Amino acid sequence: MLTTVKQTQMEQIAIGIDIGGTNTAIGLVDSQGTVLQKTSIATPTHGNIYQFITSIGHAIRGLKSATGTEIEIIGIGIGAPNANYYTGTIEEAPNLSFKGVVPFVDLLKKEMAPIQNISMTNDANAAALGEKVYGGARQMNHFVMYTLGTGVGSGIVVNGDLLYGYDGFAGECGHTTLIPGGRLCGCGALGHLEAYCSATGMKRTALELLARYHATDSLLAGYSLLTLEARNIFEAAQKGDKIALEVFELTGRWLGQGLADTVHHLSPQAIFLFGGPVAAGDFIIKPTIQSLNEHLLPVFRGKIQVLPSQLHPGDAAIVGASALVWK
Amino acid sequence: MLTTVKQTQMEQIAIGIDIGGTNTAIGLVDSQGTVLQKTSIATPTHGNIYQFITSIGHAIRGLKSATGTEIEIIGIGIGAPNANYYTGTIEEAPNLSFKGVVPFVDLLKKEMAPIQNISMTNDANAAALGEKVYGGARQMNHFVMYTLGTGVGSGIVVNGDLLYGYDGFAGECGHTTLIPGGRLCGCGALGHLEAYCSATGMKRTALELLARYHATDSLLAGYSLLTLEARNIFEAAQKGDKIALEVFELTGRWLGQGLADTVHHLSPQAIFLFGGPVAAGDFIIKPTIQSLNEHLLPVFRGKIQVLPSQLHPGDAAIVGASALVWK
Repeated sequence: MLTTVKQTQMEQIAIGIDIGGTNTAIGLVDSQGTVLQKTSIATPTHGNIYQFITSIGHAIRGLKSATGTEIEIIGIGIGAPNANYYTGTIEEAPNLSFKGVVPFVDLLKKEMAPIQNISMTNDANAAALGEKVYGGARQMNHFVMYTLGTGVGSGIVVNGDLLYGYDGFAGECGHTTLIPGGRLCGCGALGHLEAYCSATGMKRTALELLARYHATDSLLAGYSLLTLEARNIFEAAQKGDKIALEVFELTGRWLGQGLADTVHHLSPQAIFLFGGPVAAGDFIIKPTIQSLNEHLLPVFRGKIQVLPSQLHPGDAAIVGASALVWK
Repeated sequence: MLTTVKQTQMEQIAIGIDIGGTNTAIGLVDSQGTVLQKTSIATPTHGNIYQFITSIGHAIRGLKSATGTEIEIIGIGIGAPNANYYTGTIEEAPNLSFKGVVPFVDLLKKEMAPIQNISMTNDANAAALGEKVYGGARQMNHFVMYTLGTGVGSGIVVNGDLLYGYDGFAGECGHTTLIPGGRLCGCGALGHLEAYCSATGMKRTALELLARYHATDSLLAGYSLLTLEARNIFEAAQKGDKIALEVFELTGRWLGQGLADTVHHLSPQAIFLFGGPVAAGDFIIKPTIQSLNEHLLPVFRGKIQVLPSQLHPGDAAIVGASALVWK
């Protein structure tokens, strides 16, 4: 491993930025997809966009200094919820405090002048791009990435390229309807996939099941809506807890139903799953695949690969966003 | 109208073939999308594919003779359920008697030699292509066509081209799940959109509502599963029949839910609706649009055009299929 070469030679690097509801991760990424330096700052919860842009600029300059070597920043790629690739704006993002249409790319171009190669896409699109450039989809031209986290995002690749659609917002599969009139989604609509198959959705499912069975003997019985985390459910499932196992079973069944809708639209070669719940492996993958095939037309049954993302969990969003620059 | 010019000059024409569950329509189409001659033969219900291919060849030669002019057939485009554009095969079509994988294009190339420019796509893909080449989508690069008939088909155009996906079967939106565990679909799965929003689905809805309300005073009360047709429901709705009106209301609400799933995947500029139920106009379009917007992320609400197809109902499938040749 000649990593010291990287640190002693001048080289071109890209900035990858991942804007999440809570934190914003920023990293320096080389042309091989290696994260050289990274940091994280809080995403503002009260919506001062100008301060936020300034903070990002500070963080980038800090990272550049921290490398201790001469590097050239050739561009910045940003992954953000409800990002519009065409216009460089963040629009009506339900999980961010910035409301309306925020001209994020233009603001960052001013902050980071003279750097002008700055573009932005949906955070899940960025992850899909990372899978295509560096991960398990390097040989694939038709695939979909589902990111399961606080919400559920998705990125669609057709004919080898990210699909943006007419106005830049294609790939919001987390907001397809699973259960008509069902759970309230963060976006205000009812019954969306995100309300069932996200890490948050799994917590809601656990509480529903605890209530339904009055399961006082469950390992999850002592958790509240505020204290329960997805990993508690995973740990309980590993110990054979019936409620936890049923959470994974139901989540997989719901996810399979949603993936079938995606297959019927797009006929992908594979669907990649990324995020915390995927770490549960067969607990969630098995019911997902079974349900997927039950909901599919015969012509698709048994043919769609459901694969865990090959991107490093901690770096996927940064690396994916940076791929916008190299591309 | 100089139509006589067309009939006295030698010209290049394309054959468009639309294979339906009951009938197969065949037409000679000029480069402007005008159908010069057309005919219809029965689609076999007992699956002798070789006889069927021979019958199609006979019909084409008959149409060519009937023109009474010198024409050159430059190719044949076929729209068929479960058609695979990449391989030229019809695969596991639920509404056809040909089971398994039928090498339709290869068989027709033998029958029609020396004509070798023969290609085939999903019947709904063909309609979408017709809308793009000759209809209301001429200026659009991102749109979706839903065809509402015995079943529900769809064709997806992204970046100006039909989307085929990995194995050629993209655009089966009629088989997305609307109601988990709901009505049995023709494909064997439960709760698919086709089981609710097709003309057949509307009949099923009418019978359900007649039963639910024991609506002996409805204009539809005397019809059976075998005698009821979609146009009876339309005519009853025009007379203010409450059951018929509720059929359209429910069908539109279901369709809107399904269209929202499509928008969340693809972010199209417009969704075109084609087929008998669309003739009911606002009876179905109004609840469709209302439901669509209720199910959409804020970023899409109010922005998606829902439009009736501009293709002539009787010719759309033939014209669309023929567009494969010109393209």
